[in-house]
Amino acid sequence: MPKLVFIRHGQSEWNLKNLFTGWVDVNLSEQGEAEAKAAGKKLKEAGIEFDQAYTSVLTRAIKTLHFALEESDQLFVPEEKSWRLNERHYGALQGQNKAEAAEKFGEDQVHIWRRSYDVLPPLLSADDEGSAANDRRYADLDPRAIPGGENLKVTLERVIPFWEDKIAPDLLAGKNVIVAAHGNSLRALTKYIEQISDEDIMDVEMATGQPVVYTLDDKLNIVNKEKL
Amino acid sequence: MPKLVFIRHGQSEWNLKNLFTGWVDVNLSEQGEAEAKAAGKKLKEAGIEFDQAYTSVLTRAIKTLHFALEESDQLFVPEEKSWRLNERHYGALQGQNKAEAAEKFGEDQVHIWRRSYDVLPPLLSADDEGSAANDRRYADLDPRAIPGGENLKVTLERVIPFWEDKIAPDLLAGKNVIVAAHGNSLRALTKYIEQISDEDIMDVEMATGQPVVYTLDDKLNIVNKEKL
Repeated sequence: MPKLVFIRHGQSEWNLKNLFTGWVDVNLSEQGEAEAKAAGKKLKEAGIEFDQAYTSVLTRAIKTLHFALEESDQLFVPEEKSWRLNERHYGALQGQNKAEAAEKFGEDQVHIWRRSYDVLPPLLSADDEGSAANDRRYADLDPRAIPGGENLKVTLERVIPFWEDKIAPDLLAGKNVIVAAHGNSLRALTKYIEQISDEDIMDVEMATGQPVVYTLDDKLNIVNKEKL
Repeated sequence: MPKLVFIRHGQSEWNLKNLFTGWVDVNLSEQGEAEAKAAGKKLKEAGIEFDQAYTSVLTRAIKTLHFALEESDQLFVPEEKSWRLNERHYGALQGQNKAEAAEKFGEDQVHIWRRSYDVLPPLLSADDEGSAANDRRYADLDPRAIPGGENLKVTLERVIPFWEDKIAPDLLAGKNVIVAAHGNSLRALTKYIEQISDEDIMDVEMATGQPVVYTLDDKLNIVNKEKL
């Protein structure tokens, strides 16, 4: 039975500074690197051998994947990166301090932006300096698909096509798959495969650097779920 | 005009110990890591932006690629790994000390194995412990394609299909490509694109961790070659 492993990237430099990150390409912190390496050692101890690896186009997830694969002696596993696995785009909040945003917009409003399933944050336009439209890693993407800001609902809508097109076919072919990604792109996948309601999903927390291992049957029903 | 960059992996732990390495999956030495990072800084200074990265399924080349991409702020570049870019398989010589092999087989014989274009080394059989047939990274490969030992001629014959199928189409589409690989797989590519004779190619040395940058025209003729 195929295994599916989710791993949220280790602590980033902006997690540490309490900034909204989203699609901003910040690096892992030293602790984040250590978390990723520790995850790799746990995967090795668990004896999980991957056939395919997926990650986002953001450095903190890519490096987490590379450390995890290297520490489990399988850096040779094929890897594919996609913007569809990126973190939720946090719109105009990106780069702002979470505490300062609470002072500026009110705590209730920031709580709604962070915890509601379908309320959008203030949006960035394609002309804004921080827009992903100016980043060459998205040069092949239809500009209309580049978000100015996302909630979890919109994030899920662009993550699930990747599940359908790439991850699910691999699992159905019996492959073991690792997905190294972000709090909200993994939350979207978790919601989908565990069939969690819109209300409940926002309370599901993904710990940084902790592999979540699913064992699936041949219809992709969950037979077992284990956190390493 | 598209750019093509070759980079031989940084010094490995076995380069350091003077052992025949081939397909044995040894790691970079500390110096090798430093070389790979320095290569990335040079690529960044040169302002070369890649659209596609290729490497072998051997850790020392993969890590060299990752360090080079990370240090040039483009870890997001799509990456594909292939056994076709592996180092020349050194057969039964793998793991042997080069000086000890010279004592055992004679210096002339070892010189022939190392420097002739088409003489094969002593071969490993699929039953030998060190055979790649027992390594899961080659599980999808026809067992008849797994070498027991290679000369440069045979290496070239399995590298060029990868050039034809992957690298050349990218370049013809105007993409900038980086290939992080090994002394002899890069020698094979160099021989092919520079049209170097069987006699002369064995004297061409690839320095570890030094990017070689080709600028090509739309027929893939070489317009410029520069070592960073």
